[in-house]
Amino acid sequence: MTDSLKTLSEHRCFGGVQRFHEHASREIGLPMRFSVYLPPQAEHGPVPAVMYLAGLTCNEETFMVKAGAQRLAAELGLALIAPDTSPRGQAVEGIEGAAASWDFGIGAGFYLDATAEPWAEHWRMESWLIHELLPLATQAFPIDAKRVGIFGHSMGGHGALTLALRHPGQFKSLSAFAPICAPSQCPWGEKAFRGYLGNDRSAWLAHDASALMQSQGVAPYPEGILIDQGLADKFLVEQLHPHLFEAACFAAGQPLTLRRHEGYDHGYYFIQSFIADHLAHHGKLLRAASATSPDE
Amino acid sequence: MTDSLKTLSEHRCFGGVQRFHEHASREIGLPMRFSVYLPPQAEHGPVPAVMYLAGLTCNEETFMVKAGAQRLAAELGLALIAPDTSPRGQAVEGIEGAAASWDFGIGAGFYLDATAEPWAEHWRMESWLIHELLPLATQAFPIDAKRVGIFGHSMGGHGALTLALRHPGQFKSLSAFAPICAPSQCPWGEKAFRGYLGNDRSAWLAHDASALMQSQGVAPYPEGILIDQGLADKFLVEQLHPHLFEAACFAAGQPLTLRRHEGYDHGYYFIQSFIADHLAHHGKLLRAASATSPDE
Repeated sequence: MTDSLKTLSEHRCFGGVQRFHEHASREIGLPMRFSVYLPPQAEHGPVPAVMYLAGLTCNEETFMVKAGAQRLAAELGLALIAPDTSPRGQAVEGIEGAAASWDFGIGAGFYLDATAEPWAEHWRMESWLIHELLPLATQAFPIDAKRVGIFGHSMGGHGALTLALRHPGQFKSLSAFAPICAPSQCPWGEKAFRGYLGNDRSAWLAHDASALMQSQGVAPYPEGILIDQGLADKFLVEQLHPHLFEAACFAAGQPLTLRRHEGYDHGYYFIQSFIADHLAHHGKLLRAASATSPDE
Repeated sequence: MTDSLKTLSEHRCFGGVQRFHEHASREIGLPMRFSVYLPPQAEHGPVPAVMYLAGLTCNEETFMVKAGAQRLAAELGLALIAPDTSPRGQAVEGIEGAAASWDFGIGAGFYLDATAEPWAEHWRMESWLIHELLPLATQAFPIDAKRVGIFGHSMGGHGALTLALRHPGQFKSLSAFAPICAPSQCPWGEKAFRGYLGNDRSAWLAHDASALMQSQGVAPYPEGILIDQGLADKFLVEQLHPHLFEAACFAAGQPLTLRRHEGYDHGYYFIQSFIADHLAHHGKLLRAASATSPDE
C-alpha cells in the first residue's frame, strides 16, 4: 500500500519533521494529498496521533501552517495527520458544479461518501480516511494505530464528530473547533447533503452529528468531548448550531465541554488561541489508551 | 497622522487582538498595509513592541499567520508589528520590471530608499518604516515608542540588521532568522542594489549589514544580537553568508549568538521552531529598557 506514497516535501520543525505526501488513492480513484507531523519521539518508536479535518476551502497544508500545533505536539509526543478536503485536479475540475462555489465540490468534501451522481465516483472522503489513509499512515510512519484521536474545524469539525460516531472504537479522543453541529438544519449542510446524498432527508441523518448523538444508547466518549466556539463567529447562528449538539449530548449522557469564547471569530487566530487545550485533551486520553501490543 | 488609518480586519487571538491596517503613506505615496498584534496587557497601557520584517514574496500577513508568535507575545506582553514588503497596486504594477521576478520589485523592497529610477518615487521602505509607520503605530496603538525591537527573516533579516545599525537608538533589541548578511556579495543583494541604488558599489555598503558592522567603533548592541540559521537552508551558501556578519561582529566587539541548526530549512517551520527564543530575547531587553516617562 505504501508503494504509491510520494513525498512532496519535508521540513524539520520543533525537532520533529513536517511532511507532505501524495498517494494514488484506491477509494477516491485519484491522487490525494495529506500532511503528517512526526514529533521527535517518533524516532524511538510508534507514537499516538491526532487526525485534523480542515474546513471549507482548506487543504492539507492549512492546519500545519496556521494552527501553531507542532510546538505542543512535539512536547506531548503526538503525531498530527491532516488530509486534503476533497478530490482535486483535472479529472474532477470538469464536473459541472465541482468548482462553481466555495462551499460545495472541490475543497468541500464534507468527509462522507457521496451516493448521488456525478459525485459518487470520486467523492469518497469517509472511505478514503477510514479505510485507506489511516491504515496507510500507521503502516508508513511510526504511528500507533490503536491510539488515534480526531478533531477538526467547521466542516472538519462536522467530519470529526460524525466519523468518530460512525466508527466506534476507531478513535480514542474527540474534539472540535466551531463544528457544523447539525448539517441537516443549516444552509451549508443542506446544500452538501442534497448534492452528495440526494433529496431523501432521512439519509442525511447518518451524517449529522446531532442526530447521530441523539441516537446513542450509551455515551460513546465517556471521557468527554471538547468543543470550542467563538461568539464573534459570523457563521455561528446560521450554520453551526452547537446548542443542538449540546442538547443531544445531554440526552445521550455524553459528557461535553462546550466552551463559548467572547470576541473570537471563525478563523485560525481563534484556533491557535485554543489549540494547546485540544492537544492536551487528546494527549491525555491517548496516553491513557493502551499502546498496540507487539503481537497484535 | 492617524486620520488615514483604515482597519481591514481584527481578530481576537490569545486574549489580545490581531489587527490588519492600511494607511495612505506619505513616504511611499501609496496606500500601504501592515499588521499589529496587541497583547492583552495593551488594554492597561503602553507595551513594548517588536517589528518583524518578512522575506521575499511575503506580505504583512505572512508572519502573523505562520510564525506562531502571538502565544508568547501574549504571555510576555509584547506587541508585534509586521509591514508589507514593498509598494503594491495598480500604480506600480505598470512599472517595467516591478512584477517580472519574485526577488525584485513588488514583494521585494529590501527595506531601503531607492535612489535609482524608476524606483526612487515609491520604493522608500526605509523612510516609510522609520519616519512614518513606527510613529504612526506608537501614536495609534498603546505601544511604547522607547521600547521597540526589530527582527526579520531572510530579506527581512537584512532589513532588521541594517535598519538597526543605520538608526542607532531607534531599536533596543535585534535578532534575525536566516538573514541576508552581506547583500553586496550575493545574487539577491546585487540584483536589488543595482536596481534600487545604481551601479556604484560604494553606495551599496551603507545597506550591507556586514559592511555596516565592520565600520562600527563600539558594539552597537552590547546586550547581544541573536541569529538563527538552518543548515539545510538551500539559500545558505549562495545568498546568506552569516560567517561574514559573524566576522564583522567579532571585529567590532559585538556580542553575537549565531546558532546553526542541523536539518532546518529556510521556511516558517524553521522560524516557528525558534520564535520563542527570539521573543524571549526581545522581551528581556525591552523590559530592561526604560519605559517612556509621562513627560517625554
